[in-house]
Amino acid sequence: MGSGGPASGGPDDKLTSTGVPGSSAPTPSELIRSALESGRSSLTGAGLTAICRAYGIPTPEEADASSAAEAVRAGTAIGFPVALKVVSQDVVHKSEAGAVALNLAGPEQLAAAYDQMVSTVRERVPGALIEGVLVQAMVGAGREVLVGATRDPTFGSLIAFGMGGTDVEIRRDVTFALAPVDFVEARGMLDRVAGAALLRGVRGQAPADLGSLARLIVSVSRLIVDNPEVSEIDLNPVLVDDRGAKAVDVRILLAPPLPPPLPPPAPEEILASMRKLLRPASIAVIGASAEVGKIGNSVMRNLIDGGYQGKIYPVNPRAAEILGRTCHALVGDIQDEVDVAIFTIPAASVPEGLREIGRKGIPTAVLIPSGFAETGRADLQEEIQAVARRYKIRFLGPNIYGYYYTEDRICATFCTPYDVGGPVALTSQSGGIGMAILGFARSARMGVSAIVGLGNKADVDEDDLLTFFEHDSATSIIAMHMEDLKDGRAFLKVARRVSPSKPVIVLKAGRTSAGVRAARSHTGALAGDDKVYDDLFRAHGVVRAPGLREMLEYARALPLMPTPKGENVLIITGAGGSGVLLSDACEEQGLHLMRMPADLDASFKQHIPPFGAAGNPVDITGGEPPSTYRATIALGLSDPRIHALVIGYWHTIVTPPLVFAELLVEVVQEAKASGNAKPVVVSLAGDIEVEEACDLLFRNGIPAYPYTTETPVDVLGAKYRWARANCQMEEGAP
Amino acid sequence: MGSGGPASGGPDDKLTSTGVPGSSAPTPSELIRSALESGRSSLTGAGLTAICRAYGIPTPEEADASSAAEAVRAGTAIGFPVALKVVSQDVVHKSEAGAVALNLAGPEQLAAAYDQMVSTVRERVPGALIEGVLVQAMVGAGREVLVGATRDPTFGSLIAFGMGGTDVEIRRDVTFALAPVDFVEARGMLDRVAGAALLRGVRGQAPADLGSLARLIVSVSRLIVDNPEVSEIDLNPVLVDDRGAKAVDVRILLAPPLPPPLPPPAPEEILASMRKLLRPASIAVIGASAEVGKIGNSVMRNLIDGGYQGKIYPVNPRAAEILGRTCHALVGDIQDEVDVAIFTIPAASVPEGLREIGRKGIPTAVLIPSGFAETGRADLQEEIQAVARRYKIRFLGPNIYGYYYTEDRICATFCTPYDVGGPVALTSQSGGIGMAILGFARSARMGVSAIVGLGNKADVDEDDLLTFFEHDSATSIIAMHMEDLKDGRAFLKVARRVSPSKPVIVLKAGRTSAGVRAARSHTGALAGDDKVYDDLFRAHGVVRAPGLREMLEYARALPLMPTPKGENVLIITGAGGSGVLLSDACEEQGLHLMRMPADLDASFKQHIPPFGAAGNPVDITGGEPPSTYRATIALGLSDPRIHALVIGYWHTIVTPPLVFAELLVEVVQEAKASGNAKPVVVSLAGDIEVEEACDLLFRNGIPAYPYTTETPVDVLGAKYRWARANCQMEEGAP
Repeated sequence: MGSGGPASGGPDDKLTSTGVPGSSAPTPSELIRSALESGRSSLTGAGLTAICRAYGIPTPEEADASSAAEAVRAGTAIGFPVALKVVSQDVVHKSEAGAVALNLAGPEQLAAAYDQMVSTVRERVPGALIEGVLVQAMVGAGREVLVGATRDPTFGSLIAFGMGGTDVEIRRDVTFALAPVDFVEARGMLDRVAGAALLRGVRGQAPADLGSLARLIVSVSRLIVDNPEVSEIDLNPVLVDDRGAKAVDVRILLAPPLPPPLPPPAPEEILASMRKLLRPASIAVIGASAEVGKIGNSVMRNLIDGGYQGKIYPVNPRAAEILGRTCHALVGDIQDEVDVAIFTIPAASVPEGLREIGRKGIPTAVLIPSGFAETGRADLQEEIQAVARRYKIRFLGPNIYGYYYTEDRICATFCTPYDVGGPVALTSQSGGIGMAILGFARSARMGVSAIVGLGNKADVDEDDLLTFFEHDSATSIIAMHMEDLKDGRAFLKVARRVSPSKPVIVLKAGRTSAGVRAARSHTGALAGDDKVYDDLFRAHGVVRAPGLREMLEYARALPLMPTPKGENVLIITGAGGSGVLLSDACEEQGLHLMRMPADLDASFKQHIPPFGAAGNPVDITGGEPPSTYRATIALGLSDPRIHALVIGYWHTIVTPPLVFAELLVEVVQEAKASGNAKPVVVSLAGDIEVEEACDLLFRNGIPAYPYTTETPVDVLGAKYRWARANCQMEEGAP
Repeated sequence: MGSGGPASGGPDDKLTSTGVPGSSAPTPSELIRSALESGRSSLTGAGLTAICRAYGIPTPEEADASSAAEAVRAGTAIGFPVALKVVSQDVVHKSEAGAVALNLAGPEQLAAAYDQMVSTVRERVPGALIEGVLVQAMVGAGREVLVGATRDPTFGSLIAFGMGGTDVEIRRDVTFALAPVDFVEARGMLDRVAGAALLRGVRGQAPADLGSLARLIVSVSRLIVDNPEVSEIDLNPVLVDDRGAKAVDVRILLAPPLPPPLPPPAPEEILASMRKLLRPASIAVIGASAEVGKIGNSVMRNLIDGGYQGKIYPVNPRAAEILGRTCHALVGDIQDEVDVAIFTIPAASVPEGLREIGRKGIPTAVLIPSGFAETGRADLQEEIQAVARRYKIRFLGPNIYGYYYTEDRICATFCTPYDVGGPVALTSQSGGIGMAILGFARSARMGVSAIVGLGNKADVDEDDLLTFFEHDSATSIIAMHMEDLKDGRAFLKVARRVSPSKPVIVLKAGRTSAGVRAARSHTGALAGDDKVYDDLFRAHGVVRAPGLREMLEYARALPLMPTPKGENVLIITGAGGSGVLLSDACEEQGLHLMRMPADLDASFKQHIPPFGAAGNPVDITGGEPPSTYRATIALGLSDPRIHALVIGYWHTIVTPPLVFAELLVEVVQEAKASGNAKPVVVSLAGDIEVEEACDLLFRNGIPAYPYTTETPVDVLGAKYRWARANCQMEEGAP
């Protein structure tokens, strides 16, 4: 058994006042700093052991040695069998370098292994400085897991837990959280890996000691947070069984700490700026033009034609009037106060333009022009950032299409106007995706509060916009396309605050780029995985959309659905075939198909033909009249044990599409009036008239889709993911 | 080490002429039959050992014992450490019953383990007949895998290979094939599990002996095929390392063999019947009606209005004329020959109706009525099957909407006519799904050769229809919705034959039902998994659609795309943001993004702005004129190293949607004329005009989709899955 054993308390117990046992011994922080100062890039030997003890990281009993004879003495003291490992910061992957020997049964074997190991390592890692060897007690059987931590450029310190040891890079069964984590969060991580059931014991095996494992995760997360010089920690493998968890191999990498990020502005400050930017009382258009085809003309035209009621000031030294508005030669000539300046001039003129609006005291800007970092002109982008900082200007862009804010009828963009108001706020980093958002919205007549381009995000980014939408009464859901996050922690913090009241949908592009990193089992490489976004988004209440179309469909459908009160989903279908596919889709989406209670089953059976099938799906069969749809759906909406309905409609002469759609609207409205508001989604199988029925249903607040059994269940699944991640359901999982 | 060791040859070597060593010993088949005849449901002890030897299944050295003293003698002979296992056919899951003890180091431990084991098993499995114990040599380290075989009701004997031993039911990392398999097929299975890389050795581990493992799979597949009394085989775990594979635990279950299935009719016989059924020269409508709203009226009307040119004979004793056609009271009154009788009469009258058409010599029937097995009237369904067999009538249904065959303008259905001819044949088991097919086809103006309802499949099923479509010159792709297969082997055989020339797309519903089976690690339960369909479909060239909408999109898009000549996919995009999402989608679909060679990169760079990005995606940037799209796409089509193009269009004023669509059609047609036909799919991001552009592109044979980066890549992925599974690509994987 190891010398440490699981710490009786948390790491804090050991670290307060006196530091590690023996008050003269250096504290972990001193040990780490002195190792870094002496030019080391990792901790080894006694220092490593001391840190593990201080943080309550249990390791096998071990001793250093620097000759075969010393190794044998150490092995005899520890008791055979033992393991032997080379200590060297030049040898990163020990097993590949032949730097590990296991199960050495006695002195002769140990001595022979020592000699062979030293020569193998010298051969495989030429020039490696071998500091000595470590003789370690062999740890008994147990399941191999990984506990690690790393410092991520986007999210800061992350903690990782994975199933498998050396094979973790093949299985990629890993989960991440922001460090530090508390015991409850750490315990939750153990349930989030695919192989979680293995820890609970399979076929007669005793369950692993999950408490010890969770405490170990907490300790490692504290270790990286407490010590900014620690860049990565790998406990791989950790062996866990019913008696505890033990880190068989520990690797702690060091690096000079990064400067802490600048503190973000206070929320109220952000909010004030964003209100000026997105709901201005007056707008200046820098580079406004009378010439059709110019961006400065399109923006002017869209502002006017869109119906914006505030003041519009075209600015252009070469025009006296543009589209009936008096033109100013310089922004400084405008007598009034101006809230936002929209730039439609070439990139090279933007810095000077920013200075001018800065001098005039305009607090915000929208930088439409491209020609900055995205075209290799990082210098120009840095210049505008510096100017903006100097004049305290907050700006959107550059390299964007602009933005829409429908309540104020603002189309501050060179695209075509959009005026269907509604609860959905959408943002996109890319202009192309912005155009797809616009086209989809128009095609689906999706009610939109705002569409905002973020482009290069040289200043305003997602968390600024989230803060605005949080307080924007027109918005009740936010959908964001992003390729990166400037400050992942800041975004998650705001998202966690906003998402319980307003769902935050994210389409995070760029999954592929993660894939090119070499497959390695250390935490730093694993954290390059897209899984980090998956885990952190979910933990902070964000619903991730797997693709563009899903983001758009979620944005359109989620605001229409009331929050489900519990997990019980019921399928009612006119077509048995649709029922099977809808069940498949529910399983795919992680939805819980309600087990039908006997009394409810009997109630449904009263409404359907004798050969119809109650249970779940309730198959009312194909030839039924509208009254059967009505009765069964009304029952589904009124029984409190059912929390959401998936309806499969089958086009027949007896119940044509529009008849069905109208009755469904009525039934849902009646239920709502009786206090039974539940999510209802519809799949319509039928001839082309079902498209009209879907339009009617959507117009009446019921998500409905033709020729697909997947999309309705997909949007319901997204609603449930949001509700679960934001604790919005009254009843827990069944 | 085991007594057997890997067999030097295949199992055949040992089984020919003399059987197992010692010619007087019973053959495996004799052993198995006598065990079954003596009432045993599994093989144990010496019989099991003999079978393993005969089939070259390597197992650890072992000996039977029936007392502690005998066990100790056996252990001493084998050499410690040893394992101890109870032999009992009543104890199915040994570890759970406490019927296994491992690593017994010496005589005392073994004797103690014996006593404890017997009492534990008696306690946990009361009434279990303990036949004795098995003392087994401990097998050294190695990776745990599962090799198993089972007899599946749909597919017959299946062979399974899985990663993991006792934990296989958690990981569900298993692959299946039809037994028997040859060495090449077995070797292929080892690459198809998710953890395949683990067998190739991770971080310094030696790679497992894949040859031995493949030979073991071959042997087990022969064992189940040779012996119809064997119902299931589980080798779990098999331990495999660089020196070979050894089955640590072997379980062979026995059951009386099922009668062999009836041999299917010969293909030419099927073909002749199906031609009469689907391309009749004359049709009788049994139950034709003049009354609007009756199915017998809808069918008559659709046949006439649809433009069918053959003869139509309404049959109804209560009418003289229907829709201008002379009506016959009885089918026997028709003087002419009739190819098919369409039934629109109530279920109860169908048996008599079938007898009448049988007497008249009509060879085929379409049974639209419901009221058979699906409403609990299995008896009525069996009756019509018996009548049909007697009169040699082949029939479609019952419980269907009928069918369409556009080339002959046949709408033999009560739904609305459909007349857009084209290459896609669609079938559905469910009427609701049939209606969704019809609606989608009409909405998308998808060219269709046939739409056929299969319903209860009491006679004609998917392999009959596949055989027809195989020889149908109007059809070049077949998409089938199914909930079950009557004879999975027969279907796979036909699919394997048809799919290289005509892609077979299958939407297999009912994934959920598999999920309800208890999680167990034995092969029989694992084979209940949907994974069986995945593996067998792919192995037989069938492209599986994950959902209804995908089936429809694949059916529409695949015939438009030429077969790619190799794996190199290139993305050309006007919007960087779409490029990233398209790359994500390619990764998701298992498509290979070409690595751009330097010379080709230079060529692309000549056509794009200096800040555009060549590489893959080629990002031509947003503000480019039509000429840039034209030049880069033409280059992509002409360079022979590129095999497929994914285009991301971004709606701008400079290159409006229809301008882009027209130029793309031209470029693709020019390339085709120069012999450079390649799959091209398009994602259009833009305002609502992109929908019109998509229509234009589709009409010109180019799959194009608005507001989505997923669907175009999804259909290209399906084309590649088909091409790979049917060896249609000239160049292999890169």
